[in-house]
Amino acid sequence: MRFMELSKNYKVLVRYDGSRYGGWQKQTKSPTTIQGKIEAVLEKMCGCPIEIAGSGRTDAGVHANGQVFHFKAAVSLQPDEIQNYLNRYLPEDIAVLSVETAPERFHSRLSAKGKRYVYRIWRSEIPPVFERKYVCNLRKLMPEEKEILPNVAAMKTAAKLLLGTHDFKGFTSLKKTKKSTVRTITALIIEERGPEIVITFEGDGFLYHMIRIIVGTLLEVGFGKRSAQSISQVLENGIREQAGFLAPPEGLCLDAVYYE
Amino acid sequence: MRFMELSKNYKVLVRYDGSRYGGWQKQTKSPTTIQGKIEAVLEKMCGCPIEIAGSGRTDAGVHANGQVFHFKAAVSLQPDEIQNYLNRYLPEDIAVLSVETAPERFHSRLSAKGKRYVYRIWRSEIPPVFERKYVCNLRKLMPEEKEILPNVAAMKTAAKLLLGTHDFKGFTSLKKTKKSTVRTITALIIEERGPEIVITFEGDGFLYHMIRIIVGTLLEVGFGKRSAQSISQVLENGIREQAGFLAPPEGLCLDAVYYE
Repeated sequence: MRFMELSKNYKVLVRYDGSRYGGWQKQTKSPTTIQGKIEAVLEKMCGCPIEIAGSGRTDAGVHANGQVFHFKAAVSLQPDEIQNYLNRYLPEDIAVLSVETAPERFHSRLSAKGKRYVYRIWRSEIPPVFERKYVCNLRKLMPEEKEILPNVAAMKTAAKLLLGTHDFKGFTSLKKTKKSTVRTITALIIEERGPEIVITFEGDGFLYHMIRIIVGTLLEVGFGKRSAQSISQVLENGIREQAGFLAPPEGLCLDAVYYE
Repeated sequence: MRFMELSKNYKVLVRYDGSRYGGWQKQTKSPTTIQGKIEAVLEKMCGCPIEIAGSGRTDAGVHANGQVFHFKAAVSLQPDEIQNYLNRYLPEDIAVLSVETAPERFHSRLSAKGKRYVYRIWRSEIPPVFERKYVCNLRKLMPEEKEILPNVAAMKTAAKLLLGTHDFKGFTSLKKTKKSTVRTITALIIEERGPEIVITFEGDGFLYHMIRIIVGTLLEVGFGKRSAQSISQVLENGIREQAGFLAPPEGLCLDAVYYE
């Protein structure tokens, strides 16, 4: 005899290596997405289709240290049993860090107050053996370039111009949209860590491709291909073509999502 | 017009992710070995077959942070040009850290004074997403075990018995050999680092499978499946069957080779 379970709202923290996925979001184009993998295991667990909602999409090849999603289901399992079940049946490159019940109104995307992303750049001529799937390797990006050491001081100066609240229309691949492209970047920290340059972004939200275009633009500044000043111009005129190139996905990781 | 080059002896430091290789050493059984990959690029560079000699073999799936090999060749390239050539043509999971000319008598194996190996054990129920190819995941090893937290204090006590000079005949998969199985372990350090237990071995040399059998034996002590004292017995009687299981290769990394 089974008791009828009331539907509950679950908040889940998940980590993944995005290398072999077509991104977070389920889509017809790519059969292998992180959302798809998780929903398949939840369906097996619940005995009926379950839809999960992530705090945001991550592109194909982008990783997450702490992505958040929520889903509603009526199950008799405890949160830690749900976590164990997921970790048992998910592939090795996806791991559930925690499962907790959340208030009915909790929504992983709508309730989010901010996010932190980390972008790792490899600037050494010695190839990144153990880190190769988690960094943007400059030598691979610029095989013919004589040297691959960007001017980090110049990048830091340029980064300051992006801090604060701006219309980032020029820093997104989004086609014309009626939604606001105004966002606030609360932290943009560039650190040198041996063979790596690590760029940490914090803000209330980020547009489609925004971080990867900012990284590409900062790298162009670092390699003397554009002035720091040109960034202010793109912030003003909102012309995507005047911003930098789209940095590759493998260096990017959604580090954390913040809630109240 | 090309000048005749004198043959020189080169010492090379190399890092690799052993996941997709059949080990260091060339063999007919496995078409993909690290030695084979490197020799193919050197042959391309030199225009004739080149044989390289490693400081020792690493098993299929074992990694190296600092493996050393040497080779003799007559080339007009400078050591840093050889390094660049190798890094350009080797696959992404093999990287050359340095190339230098060495005395004629230098031999990567015979001149080695000692080695350091690191074995990483994952003891958390949260699967190792980014580290999964570089750790021994206890949950994967023991899917039915109730808990996967070995008693590290007991492992440390047991490890002390292995320090120093012993006949490690019981701790190798080598069949009967005329060669000595006496080795000296100068350091065996067990550290807890968050979700990991990291075991560092230093010694004058290690027998075939010796580190992985020691790790398996220490884990059996940690899970209360054998006493620390049983280790002394195996050191005395040299019976392989009385030592522990062979720990999986992916947790093992040849960290460094020492020379005078």
